[in-house]
Amino acid sequence: MRKPYFKGIDGAPEPLRATFKRKVRFEEVDPLGIVWHGRYPSYFEDGRVTLGHLNGIGYLDFREQNVAAPIKQMHMDYIKPLYYGDTAHIEAILHWNEAARLNYEFIIRNDTGEITTTGYTVQLFIDSNQELMMFLPDFYMNFLQRWKAGKL
Amino acid sequence: MRKPYFKGIDGAPEPLRATFKRKVRFEEVDPLGIVWHGRYPSYFEDGRVTLGHLNGIGYLDFREQNVAAPIKQMHMDYIKPLYYGDTAHIEAILHWNEAARLNYEFIIRNDTGEITTTGYTVQLFIDSNQELMMFLPDFYMNFLQRWKAGKL
Amino acid sequence: MRKPYFKGIDGAPEPLRATFKRKVRFEEVDPLGIVWHGRYPSYFEDGRVTLGHLNGIGYLDFREQNVAAPIKQMHMDYIKPLYYGDTAHIEAILHWNEAARLNYEFIIRNDTGEITTTGYTVQLFIDSNQELMMFLPDFYMNFLQRWKAGKL
Amino acid sequence: MRKPYFKGIDGAPEPLRATFKRKVRFEEVDPLGIVWHGRYPSYFEDGRVTLGHLNGIGYLDFREQNVAAPIKQMHMDYIKPLYYGDTAHIEAILHWNEAARLNYEFIIRNDTGEITTTGYTVQLFIDSNQELMMFLPDFYMNFLQRWKAGKL
Repeated sequence: MRKPYFKGIDGAPEPLRATFKRKVRFEEVDPLGIVWHGRYPSYFEDGRVTLGHLNGIGYLDFREQNVAAPIKQMHMDYIKPLYYGDTAHIEAILHWNEAARLNYEFIIRNDTGEITTTGYTVQLFIDSNQELMMFLPDFYMNFLQRWKAGKL
Repeated sequence: MRKPYFKGIDGAPEPLRATFKRKVRFEEVDPLGIVWHGRYPSYFEDGRVTLGHLNGIGYLDFREQNVAAPIKQMHMDYIKPLYYGDTAHIEAILHWNEAARLNYEFIIRNDTGEITTTGYTVQLFIDSNQELMMFLPDFYMNFLQRWKAGKL
Repeated sequence: MRKPYFKGIDGAPEPLRATFKRKVRFEEVDPLGIVWHGRYPSYFEDGRVTLGHLNGIGYLDFREQNVAAPIKQMHMDYIKPLYYGDTAHIEAILHWNEAARLNYEFIIRNDTGEITTTGYTVQLFIDSNQELMMFLPDFYMNFLQRWKAGKL
Repeated sequence: MRKPYFKGIDGAPEPLRATFKRKVRFEEVDPLGIVWHGRYPSYFEDGRVTLGHLNGIGYLDFREQNVAAPIKQMHMDYIKPLYYGDTAHIEAILHWNEAARLNYEFIIRNDTGEITTTGYTVQLFIDSNQELMMFLPDFYMNFLQRWKAGKL
């Protein structure tokens, strides 16, 4: 049993989930015949972008409000390799949090459903002065309310 | 004060250190004008390769002995951005460990010496049957002896 | 009217065509807000892989016969930029040729059908001794026969 | 004897030349054990950036004048592969031209001086309205004068 990446919060709604499928490219495979470990930030991003877009909290949604959400922390656990010809099934899981931050977990599976890679990223909200936001932007607060109300 | 990434070991020799300088490339910078977070595995690798090469434990040294040392875990903390025109000073720090694993810490600084990024990678030794090695290969045991004897 | 990249051959069958759709990734966009010119080899490859896979002449089909088909020439004409959020519609067009070579043309269009990028690649067949093949491997000759017979 | 990529101009001063050395990275090598063909735009860029920086016509010099110089055409001829452990010696050669364009040729050699790759890029000057510039910006005209006068 994997240890959870994020501490649970009492009364939190269920995490949001979205999956993106991506075929391994030849150029992503290293001389050992496996996807090079440094490609996975791009795989994680595909999952994150998919979930963000589905829920109205994508990069362009943030940018419209002059908010950026840069990555402050990233972690990866490599369990099994991915090979040329494989399809990566990238599941992004957004965990509930009431602060100005995004806690994403990722689970990548191969075509037979085996977990190949897990990890997480943490993003913090930055305003147009490059300062950490202490409060939540309106569009994001609305998103949290819809999430809590089970309307996503 | 940063919390250490690896637990200290009693009686361990001092970590090994090596630094690689790398100028930020235009292609590494994202639409926000900063090095995209997913480029840092490549930066870390430059540090790791430099230290490995200096000490006879590089990729080619391992390959010659039919040993691979794939990355099992990677972690990154993003503290400040790097910009186009910056030079990243990538310090790799190898921490003492007597198991068949490599515990690397990384500290990236900008031209004014500010820490921009820290992180670590963990590698485990795999033999030619893709099995985790339980013992240390000879060339690596020699490397540990020279390290302990202060001869590196 | 664009000048053709490859000279027509009398009596040649129609070119083969396949299209792959690819959403522009954040990491592919440069500080000027457009897809960096050096990403397009990957876009072309997505088109080439799609056509090759559909017709039994993909990388794995070649590898099974101990034949490699490395790129010997690549050319790109950049007409309009692609932006974050765009989908690239990558059309690969394989032109008839009876030698041990692959002449691929590429046309990338944006969501409104405008041509953004065109180009070509030339690949030559190499045997397991790294020598240029003077004759066609059987599986490839069969492929040419089916193409000529209109059975693809 | 290679056919020249650019037509000579009567009375033109000698081309400008600069070389950048770059060690092949593990991540750049494909499953066939050679640098993947699509990495070369980055190699060319290292040569171009080196020459531009030396002569005051780098990306930042253009940006300061609100001029961009996007790549309109790129061409590559792959002659020999580069391998892990190799150093690429990337020579950028700027050919004289009095229009608002940059004609760069590239020659990459390996450690034994063999030519592995050649190619070229063409850049056109764009003003802040994204229009092609019909005239030369002052700083660039000065650069041409110094070049013609042999003062570079």
